[in-house]
Amino acid sequence: MALRRKGNGLKIIPLGGLGQIGMNITAFEYDDTIIVVDCGMSFPGDDMPGIDLVIPDITYLKQNIDRVKAFFITHGHEDHIGSIPYVLGEINVPIYATKLTTALIEHKLVEHEMLDDVRRIVVKYGTVVEMGPFKVEFIRTNHSIADAAALAIYTPVGTIFHTGDFKIDYTPVFGDVADLQRFGEIGKQGVLALMCDSTNAVRPGFTMSEKSVGKTLDTLFAENVNHRIIIATFASNVDRVQQIIDTAYRYGRKVAIDGRSMVTVITIAAELGYIRIPDGTLIEIEELRNYEDKNTVLITTGSQGESMASLSRMASGIHKKVSIDPNDTIILSSSPIPGNEKAVSKIINEITQRGAKVIYQDTHVSGHACQEEIKLMYALIKPKFAIPVHGEYRHLMAQAQIAESMDVPKENIKIIKCGDVLELTEDSAEVVDQVTHGDILVDGLGVGDVGNIVLRDRQLLAKDGIIIVVMSLEKYTNQLLSGPDIVSRGFVYVRESENLIEEARIIVEDVVQNCIDKGVNDWSRMKNNIKDELGDFLWKRIKRTPMILPIIMEVQ
Amino acid sequence: MALRRKGNGLKIIPLGGLGQIGMNITAFEYDDTIIVVDCGMSFPGDDMPGIDLVIPDITYLKQNIDRVKAFFITHGHEDHIGSIPYVLGEINVPIYATKLTTALIEHKLVEHEMLDDVRRIVVKYGTVVEMGPFKVEFIRTNHSIADAAALAIYTPVGTIFHTGDFKIDYTPVFGDVADLQRFGEIGKQGVLALMCDSTNAVRPGFTMSEKSVGKTLDTLFAENVNHRIIIATFASNVDRVQQIIDTAYRYGRKVAIDGRSMVTVITIAAELGYIRIPDGTLIEIEELRNYEDKNTVLITTGSQGESMASLSRMASGIHKKVSIDPNDTIILSSSPIPGNEKAVSKIINEITQRGAKVIYQDTHVSGHACQEEIKLMYALIKPKFAIPVHGEYRHLMAQAQIAESMDVPKENIKIIKCGDVLELTEDSAEVVDQVTHGDILVDGLGVGDVGNIVLRDRQLLAKDGIIIVVMSLEKYTNQLLSGPDIVSRGFVYVRESENLIEEARIIVEDVVQNCIDKGVNDWSRMKNNIKDELGDFLWKRIKRTPMILPIIMEVQ
Repeated sequence: MALRRKGNGLKIIPLGGLGQIGMNITAFEYDDTIIVVDCGMSFPGDDMPGIDLVIPDITYLKQNIDRVKAFFITHGHEDHIGSIPYVLGEINVPIYATKLTTALIEHKLVEHEMLDDVRRIVVKYGTVVEMGPFKVEFIRTNHSIADAAALAIYTPVGTIFHTGDFKIDYTPVFGDVADLQRFGEIGKQGVLALMCDSTNAVRPGFTMSEKSVGKTLDTLFAENVNHRIIIATFASNVDRVQQIIDTAYRYGRKVAIDGRSMVTVITIAAELGYIRIPDGTLIEIEELRNYEDKNTVLITTGSQGESMASLSRMASGIHKKVSIDPNDTIILSSSPIPGNEKAVSKIINEITQRGAKVIYQDTHVSGHACQEEIKLMYALIKPKFAIPVHGEYRHLMAQAQIAESMDVPKENIKIIKCGDVLELTEDSAEVVDQVTHGDILVDGLGVGDVGNIVLRDRQLLAKDGIIIVVMSLEKYTNQLLSGPDIVSRGFVYVRESENLIEEARIIVEDVVQNCIDKGVNDWSRMKNNIKDELGDFLWKRIKRTPMILPIIMEVQ
Repeated sequence: MALRRKGNGLKIIPLGGLGQIGMNITAFEYDDTIIVVDCGMSFPGDDMPGIDLVIPDITYLKQNIDRVKAFFITHGHEDHIGSIPYVLGEINVPIYATKLTTALIEHKLVEHEMLDDVRRIVVKYGTVVEMGPFKVEFIRTNHSIADAAALAIYTPVGTIFHTGDFKIDYTPVFGDVADLQRFGEIGKQGVLALMCDSTNAVRPGFTMSEKSVGKTLDTLFAENVNHRIIIATFASNVDRVQQIIDTAYRYGRKVAIDGRSMVTVITIAAELGYIRIPDGTLIEIEELRNYEDKNTVLITTGSQGESMASLSRMASGIHKKVSIDPNDTIILSSSPIPGNEKAVSKIINEITQRGAKVIYQDTHVSGHACQEEIKLMYALIKPKFAIPVHGEYRHLMAQAQIAESMDVPKENIKIIKCGDVLELTEDSAEVVDQVTHGDILVDGLGVGDVGNIVLRDRQLLAKDGIIIVVMSLEKYTNQLLSGPDIVSRGFVYVRESENLIEEARIIVEDVVQNCIDKGVNDWSRMKNNIKDELGDFLWKRIKRTPMILPIIMEVQ
């Protein structure tokens, strides 16, 4: 088989998640078996206008489809499960994950009408799944969602320890502290390579316990006893929601939930017992009006300033059921993800203008390990090789420095990138090959039909708009039957720029006449001449570079 | 005169800078005299694709052009001087400013070939300019550029104290601490209203002295003695550049300067004596190669990740004169302005990938007063009225809270917005009217020819591209001579979506044939039918909403 990799080592092949935040997916390959850890998506960058989400290019997995045996998912966040409906549609193998993670995956599959097509196997912490030459153990860890797991992947060349996203929370809201004893035990038995979360590797110190947010909430509730309280946070942060509900209950407040994803996650979490809601606490959003402000709390989505989310609609006054008034205190229990700062500021300004109070500082803790926790992980695992994962290049490099400070020899620290094939033996780790990888853009129902050419056109169109030059020509005589006319969009306000457009039309007319006079009947040459002359004119005249699109209609 | 405002009070009319960061410009009007403080620009938001800069709508000033007597400029930053070439082209009155500010304005006028047309008057701290019923005193303050002034505006109804952008720096690099004695003296004599910078009003504590960055630089130079050091910072922060040069000199390093705006500002500052460069320290960038890495420093622009700036070109390997290598230490002496976070991250990643070290934390101090400095200002000035300026709504509200805590009665705190006419008498301050105000967008050489319609088109085009439907029809018989053809840009990768495009063409053909059969000869009706039918089809088929542009060519 042409694409079968040679050699006796273990191959680790990240197809996403390295050199970027998000879209985590990594293949582990030994002989005839490939297993995949995580199957995430990422959100589009500013340079991807119109794109809804980004999924990984899994050409390599498709080329080796007979060898792919299973997906192992570390936890239920979008950057770890978001591509499942797309990928599993092409590679249908079982998915192993813990209970809450599986439930979130199932919700996704239902939305894509795929639930009956994909086999899910729920595992517990401590479960070891055998898959050809691999054994995969799920181990309890902490993160900003319950049921997160680290994976110990036992292979013929040694153990690979993959942390997934993690932090160390000694006082988690739900469940227990990460299974540090098991980490230590596995480390003691010998770990070939540690693949550790780098998201917060540039931050010194420790990430605070999720419980610390509970204390902050308590103080804020005490300071705002007479106000209605609206709290926006990440829908997936079940423990945060639990703490809000607990605090509300202590203060005798009813709780309403708003926002589609918030309702979904809380419903799932409550059904499975990951969230405990005291009887009589939850009310419908329509019932808010039946209670005094001081007796209610509304939990909602939109803490990142997402324009269609619930909080955003409240802030701009278009929410159908809730209007913000001066007696409201709005708490953003989150911090802006890089790129969202301006959207979040906009919402804060809008809410402030409605006379309400907004609290947005010191109301959140991260779900990712800072430098000292990463050191703890290295101290427990003591790997031979370090392979930093989950992060932009600077984050990976920051972890490399931590690894070095924890006595991993510099030559054993492997900064790899998506598509790299890292081959590990008992005493070596080298990039031996590259495979296809990349971003597949999802736009509406189209998957992969928007690529660089289309994106570049969109960027060009956004910058200075488009000028369409259109004319009808007699097919054999080249006689101009109609036009050239100029139509523009996004270029200039035409009614106030009639002179400019008329000058442009004359330029084009000259080019066309000139071509006809010279007997040019190669339309592409005429089109290029139009583009050149008109482009030059517009640049000199107004310093803009709209897309110029000549269209010639041939009439018989 | 219809537009002449009635009443005997002083009118304060902000035309920019309130409810936003940037574009500061405020008119002060009494009887027949209008004076204007600052004349800034702002940078376009994400919702303004293709726009280069934004300037204020000065319709009100133009309508009252005979009464406008002078501009008073507080300091030389773009958000205070950037609109001068546009505004002074329409309202040619003298500009009063301190020496460095004037030099920066003059540089701008030279670029726009307007130097001979605009009268500039250089003032010193302590100068009082008489202008009709107004007297304007320039008072020394501190900011992230030298020669910044607060203004005491003496009017018949009382004194208005305008801080400009400010911080309190007890140990400034150049010049002296803000003239707190004079602030106190003016306050003691009685101030009707304080217009105070709100930019950092949400931040507790004090802003650190600019000198503290010098100490950090010293540590960083000591830690990187064997590396070439490249430092990116704001071109306008002359004191920062001074400290970099001083540190370089102490460490026996030569200094090269790169980036157009950096060279401009340093040249101007050096000529005027605002920066002192030891003899033999400055070298040309081409000379860097003649020295060992450890003996050089390069100061450059691009600390905000601006894609065309010098640092960005180095990071992506397209700088003509400097290539980053693993022995470089790059210091970003700045913090990202909201909205620039991702661009800055990109540069850090690119530099890190070249093997160089990047230092970007704790290497910058703000130029704006935090809460304790704002309190100091209120304690010195003790105004009757507080009019927070310079900031988004949340910043203005944060200052309102500070003012209240400093015993300004709540009803005397006036949160106003652009276009408001705030009338002040000796014992009242009320918004009595609104005037035209807004953003004028500058795109290339076009000023104001891109408005909401064009912007909305650009946003639409960026999101899902454009589909052009074009056909030729015989004018009198309505016979279809050619087409309908479909041309798309930014919609979908056409070669891989031939079926979709063909289906779309058939839809359009049916619509056209249907119209022709029914004898429709109202082209706009036919066009609307095409838009509706094709739009419906595309939404159902692929969930996208490209702009649809039908063009009908009439042939006689």
